[in-house]
Amino acid sequence: MQRTLLRELNRQLGKRVKIQGWVNTVRDQGAIKFLLLRDVTGMVQVIITREFSQAFSAAQDLTLESVVEVLGRVKEEKQAPGGFEVLAEELQVLSSAAGKVPIPVVEKGTEEASREKRLNWRWLDLRKPEKRLIFQVWTVMEHSFREYFINQGYIEIHSPKLMSAASESGSELFEVDYFDRKAYLAQSPQFYKQMAMAAGFEKVFEVGPVFRANPSFTSRHDTEFTMYDFELSFIDSHEDVMREAEALIAQMLKTVKERFGEEIKRVYGRELIVPEIPFPRLTMREAKRILRGLAVPSDREGDLSPEEERALSRFIQEEKGHEFLFLTDWPAEVRPFYHMRLETDPTLTKGFDLLWNGLEIITGSQREHRYETLAKQAEGEGIDLQSIDKYLEFFKYGCPPHGGCAPGPTRMLMKIFNIENVREVTYIYRGVKRLTP
Amino acid sequence: MQRTLLRELNRQLGKRVKIQGWVNTVRDQGAIKFLLLRDVTGMVQVIITREFSQAFSAAQDLTLESVVEVLGRVKEEKQAPGGFEVLAEELQVLSSAAGKVPIPVVEKGTEEASREKRLNWRWLDLRKPEKRLIFQVWTVMEHSFREYFINQGYIEIHSPKLMSAASESGSELFEVDYFDRKAYLAQSPQFYKQMAMAAGFEKVFEVGPVFRANPSFTSRHDTEFTMYDFELSFIDSHEDVMREAEALIAQMLKTVKERFGEEIKRVYGRELIVPEIPFPRLTMREAKRILRGLAVPSDREGDLSPEEERALSRFIQEEKGHEFLFLTDWPAEVRPFYHMRLETDPTLTKGFDLLWNGLEIITGSQREHRYETLAKQAEGEGIDLQSIDKYLEFFKYGCPPHGGCAPGPTRMLMKIFNIENVREVTYIYRGVKRLTP
Repeated sequence: MQRTLLRELNRQLGKRVKIQGWVNTVRDQGAIKFLLLRDVTGMVQVIITREFSQAFSAAQDLTLESVVEVLGRVKEEKQAPGGFEVLAEELQVLSSAAGKVPIPVVEKGTEEASREKRLNWRWLDLRKPEKRLIFQVWTVMEHSFREYFINQGYIEIHSPKLMSAASESGSELFEVDYFDRKAYLAQSPQFYKQMAMAAGFEKVFEVGPVFRANPSFTSRHDTEFTMYDFELSFIDSHEDVMREAEALIAQMLKTVKERFGEEIKRVYGRELIVPEIPFPRLTMREAKRILRGLAVPSDREGDLSPEEERALSRFIQEEKGHEFLFLTDWPAEVRPFYHMRLETDPTLTKGFDLLWNGLEIITGSQREHRYETLAKQAEGEGIDLQSIDKYLEFFKYGCPPHGGCAPGPTRMLMKIFNIENVREVTYIYRGVKRLTP
Repeated sequence: MQRTLLRELNRQLGKRVKIQGWVNTVRDQGAIKFLLLRDVTGMVQVIITREFSQAFSAAQDLTLESVVEVLGRVKEEKQAPGGFEVLAEELQVLSSAAGKVPIPVVEKGTEEASREKRLNWRWLDLRKPEKRLIFQVWTVMEHSFREYFINQGYIEIHSPKLMSAASESGSELFEVDYFDRKAYLAQSPQFYKQMAMAAGFEKVFEVGPVFRANPSFTSRHDTEFTMYDFELSFIDSHEDVMREAEALIAQMLKTVKERFGEEIKRVYGRELIVPEIPFPRLTMREAKRILRGLAVPSDREGDLSPEEERALSRFIQEEKGHEFLFLTDWPAEVRPFYHMRLETDPTLTKGFDLLWNGLEIITGSQREHRYETLAKQAEGEGIDLQSIDKYLEFFKYGCPPHGGCAPGPTRMLMKIFNIENVREVTYIYRGVKRLTP
């Protein structure tokens, strides 16, 4: 007998079905037991009476969160959630939960265990439908990300995570014992995306893990996370990258909203907005002037504090009614050496950040593709050319003008769900003190 | 002026266009120069005459593999490849190749540099259209992989690559300095796929890197590679996993053939066949009997040597005209402890391998989801239960019957292109002696 998913039971009224899932709740009234059964598509009330003695006896010591299979008839019942229930004829325990579950698998809104305890028992925490929803949304969002690029003729790459030297900067590197020498975990696919430009792939994207030995304990830092990356050749300036980024994000949010908009609103109270294109843009000089006008305290000369990011997003929301804001013309001193400088003012770069409701979700730029200029900029930042000689070689034998950026999916999910902590939108979080489960 | 891709020039006959790309060849006849220009979509002949003095002078010292932009008119020319050429009016060098390219960027069939030298200069090697094709096919194949699972309601996960202990076995582990302790790189997402089953995700897939500190130097071994993984719940046996795997592979090959079948045949001489479902199946006992009949020497009792794998594929090709072969009922002694045993014979497992033309491309099984049985099987293989206690916890609080497998994309690409060496189908290869570029 085929399994019927709980979502599809309403089409089986009066019929005999096989259903499978977790025991969400049990209400025992002696001669009759009410189970709430949960599968990946929904929940249903299951009635167990003495009339079906096998089922009744198998359900005798049923523990919460055990996995069961029920054969029974779907029957209309006005009182039951959804307007119908399943009258169990046979019940088989596929996997019995050994006693009390360490953290309650409760409905959203009910009291939860502490975050640390929930992370210890992450697979129990993820049984809650509203937590699983985050990863269903991620799946659809990422598919939309890929479809955007594949439709534009991009090639997908899987770049190595084991490197012989730093990919971004020497700090926050994880060191690996690699046979008789040391390797390092990639902090980003930056160099290998650029290598693909030197290889004539012209447009590439990548989805993969990145590793940062960052000792921070904040709500938005982790030591391993998934990154989206793209890079494209023959651009005129970073504007081409920004146009690609805003079209991408609008498409991703449109797809997520169509598929999950109502559920996100119902469960998380967040009304998703598909942003209008083009997104607003401010230069860093303009942004800093606005912040001074708003009297936002600043401790960073050319950069922005989290507080300043939030103030700018509030400002653009009020002024333009937009959730997104591109910041351009970043000072060279706060950007990596490979960001191209402005022709009109070489103290500024063709780099940009994208803020979404107060959180930076993308950093990008046009890259410097001219060997001599690139080497000069690296030296200017005190980088030993010997240490980046393999990277510099990419630009020696013909490399087109190019640029790219890296949207962070977990940061996007934080904004989609209005969730403040990256731990909640990561399948299994990794931090300084957390390597399990 | 918009750039025209070389593939689209045939629609611009007589018109003025902007084209960009790499200088593939130069033929200098004094008063007239013939460039072959290459972009990601094709090649075109560019004519440079004295009549357009800027272009003529800019092309004076043009080195091979430099990146140029040409403004010119598309003109019919029976002699030229494709039946037309571009008459250059302006030429701008976007990036000049500094002298002779270290490895020639030649057509397929022409003499190549040694593999090691080509891998040293991988980005130059990848400029060859037939090498780029591998990654264009990979992109399409992987998109098809995802579409298959997303259409079936699977959730995509990104599991952590940093772990506190081994994921598969204690051997071939890379050790990482993780703040004040040690971490290990994941050899597979196995445990985290199974955790998703315990979390009630029911069906998941993952695409990501795996790491094996394998000291082998063979043509099919590497220390880091991309893996496809999927896992599904509420199965009746490993047959459900095999059915999913064969449907998946048939769809992936159908998609690749539709999009790139002709090009693969023209460039690599390989006629792709979309396999019929179901794939042939043999138990290991049957397979060994056949191998004895064929007098194939064997040095492995319950396992297969590469030679035996090839012989079995030849056999099934002759008998059934099929490129694929499932091998089932593997002896428990050659499978991991978490493979479920056959009820009828507990010395055998519900594990399977899939061979494609002599190469194992998938290993899979139904997993043991019953806590007590799983612990007993682990102990039976001499595993200290303490060392896998975190894993065993997944099965304590309700875990459905489940199974899964992991198709290797690079092994599939080897078979799609009839390429013998995994180094050629990996974007950037990692091996014992290779951590660069």
